[in-house]
Amino acid sequence: MIRIPYEEAVSVLAGILVRRGFDEKRARISAGLFADANRDGVLSHGLDRFGSYLQAIEEGLLVPSAEPILVHSSGALEQWDGRSGPGNLNARTCMARALELSGEFGVGCVGLRNTNHWMRGGNYGWQAAESNKIGICWTNTMPNLPPWGSSKPLIGNNPIIIAVPREDGPIVLDMAISQFSYGALSRYAAEGSHLPVPGGYDSYGKLTTDPAAVAESMRPLPIGFWKGSGLSILLDLVAASLSGGKATCDIEPNPARESGVSQVFLAFSPPDYPGLADRVAASLGEDVRYPGRETLERRRRSEKLGIPADEKIWSTILGM
Amino acid sequence: MIRIPYEEAVSVLAGILVRRGFDEKRARISAGLFADANRDGVLSHGLDRFGSYLQAIEEGLLVPSAEPILVHSSGALEQWDGRSGPGNLNARTCMARALELSGEFGVGCVGLRNTNHWMRGGNYGWQAAESNKIGICWTNTMPNLPPWGSSKPLIGNNPIIIAVPREDGPIVLDMAISQFSYGALSRYAAEGSHLPVPGGYDSYGKLTTDPAAVAESMRPLPIGFWKGSGLSILLDLVAASLSGGKATCDIEPNPARESGVSQVFLAFSPPDYPGLADRVAASLGEDVRYPGRETLERRRRSEKLGIPADEKIWSTILGM
Repeated sequence: MIRIPYEEAVSVLAGILVRRGFDEKRARISAGLFADANRDGVLSHGLDRFGSYLQAIEEGLLVPSAEPILVHSSGALEQWDGRSGPGNLNARTCMARALELSGEFGVGCVGLRNTNHWMRGGNYGWQAAESNKIGICWTNTMPNLPPWGSSKPLIGNNPIIIAVPREDGPIVLDMAISQFSYGALSRYAAEGSHLPVPGGYDSYGKLTTDPAAVAESMRPLPIGFWKGSGLSILLDLVAASLSGGKATCDIEPNPARESGVSQVFLAFSPPDYPGLADRVAASLGEDVRYPGRETLERRRRSEKLGIPADEKIWSTILGM
Repeated sequence: MIRIPYEEAVSVLAGILVRRGFDEKRARISAGLFADANRDGVLSHGLDRFGSYLQAIEEGLLVPSAEPILVHSSGALEQWDGRSGPGNLNARTCMARALELSGEFGVGCVGLRNTNHWMRGGNYGWQAAESNKIGICWTNTMPNLPPWGSSKPLIGNNPIIIAVPREDGPIVLDMAISQFSYGALSRYAAEGSHLPVPGGYDSYGKLTTDPAAVAESMRPLPIGFWKGSGLSILLDLVAASLSGGKATCDIEPNPARESGVSQVFLAFSPPDYPGLADRVAASLGEDVRYPGRETLERRRRSEKLGIPADEKIWSTILGM
């Protein structure tokens, strides 16, 4: 692990993006979203993914210059077409639009279709909370998780973000519906550790805490077994319905080819109830790490010391 | 298990409610919501709960004549005060209002505070789907579940419902955030069965599939361990923020005194994409029981044979 000044990371990444066809302004925003993930300690969805983002450009799945366009409006609910643009920029634009709609109507909702992986979903929750609004967003994915009752990956891990503003730092949930991501499985396997709780089935169909066995069988568990399975199916259906886009079953089941996903961005602008979020956080006591509890602390450390990054990944990026 | 004609169940329940202070019309609607739960096979949240509903009236927690009132509007987002009225009628009214708002604005959201247990949450999902709209609603509860990192029940099991219309019967998720409810734990214990997956901790702090041990320790698991714990906290915070009502930590931790809960009702009216829900359902294959898959079948059986009910509970009701 190394530390890099935030601004240095942004300008290195932005430079690479400009050489790949981004205009200067969009390159810097995209680079900032990658750097923000590392700054907040979410390395897995920050610089670690920059290579796959460039790969999608090379494959022609991600069109650097494409901007999302409004295709249907019914007041506080809009549908946008992401036109295969950069997933992180599309998501940011659509959360901004949902926030704008919530200023006008109290609640705003944008369904976004035909977009790409949004990288760190938590960024768009923070975006809402920093406007002092409640933000909820989720995305579908390619089929990568077996539903309850099947051993085949037919549903998505469909990350969902829920963010509530608070003066001392927002409370932000950013979670996928699988109990452990493939990334997490390989981290545990590399450390030679077992999973802290069962993470899926081995090739004999038995629940296991062996990360390599789960990765091999390709049968990770959804959270809550049948419950997360149902939740994933509904998040997918609602995302496809609100966006008019693809459902998980329509998306190519190949991590290198995943594109054309559907997303939902909801923003709420209720009257302010000062102290509510603090009261809830305090009620959980000292030992409970509620979502986002440590993010501001990590961010402050990154502002002082530079953002954390994997040394190998950073040196690969420097060579691009 | 016995079968009772739907209309007979409704008129018996309605008669009891009229004697408890409901007017005729509201008594019949409330009775219908109880009967609907049994008709659809959700006995645990139908007639099984009628006794606790009456108990809440006797305790003065549930005011039969109280109707919800609008307290704040910002267009498509409204806040309503349930005024301690019947939880099922308040919820039905507020979902109806969200549906109305979604007709005008594309999306509608009602935050409801100061209400009572809504009984079967799935009813309000079906209500949305039967209007050919997408419905999402959730409620907070008293503290009844330990968050991840604590052994004390500090968070709620906060049921959430997501419903998508479909010609052959809507797809409706209706789930609480605990892996097993206390009701489910006692059913397994009464049958002498183990839970199919770990359901919580025993008194020694070990994960267990022994239902009695979990009930005794009062440490049931949230779905997905830390993930469901975070989800519960955020659902609670958003419900309290959108309604201006109580958060879980403000609600008396006593099942017989639980009242003044906060709820959210969201309705969406996107353009219609025919075939989407059928395509998603078909993609899951024959073996996967997606949410709501069996409900219509159960409903048809009930329409033919009468609604299923626990014999002892029905005879208690007849004696009221």
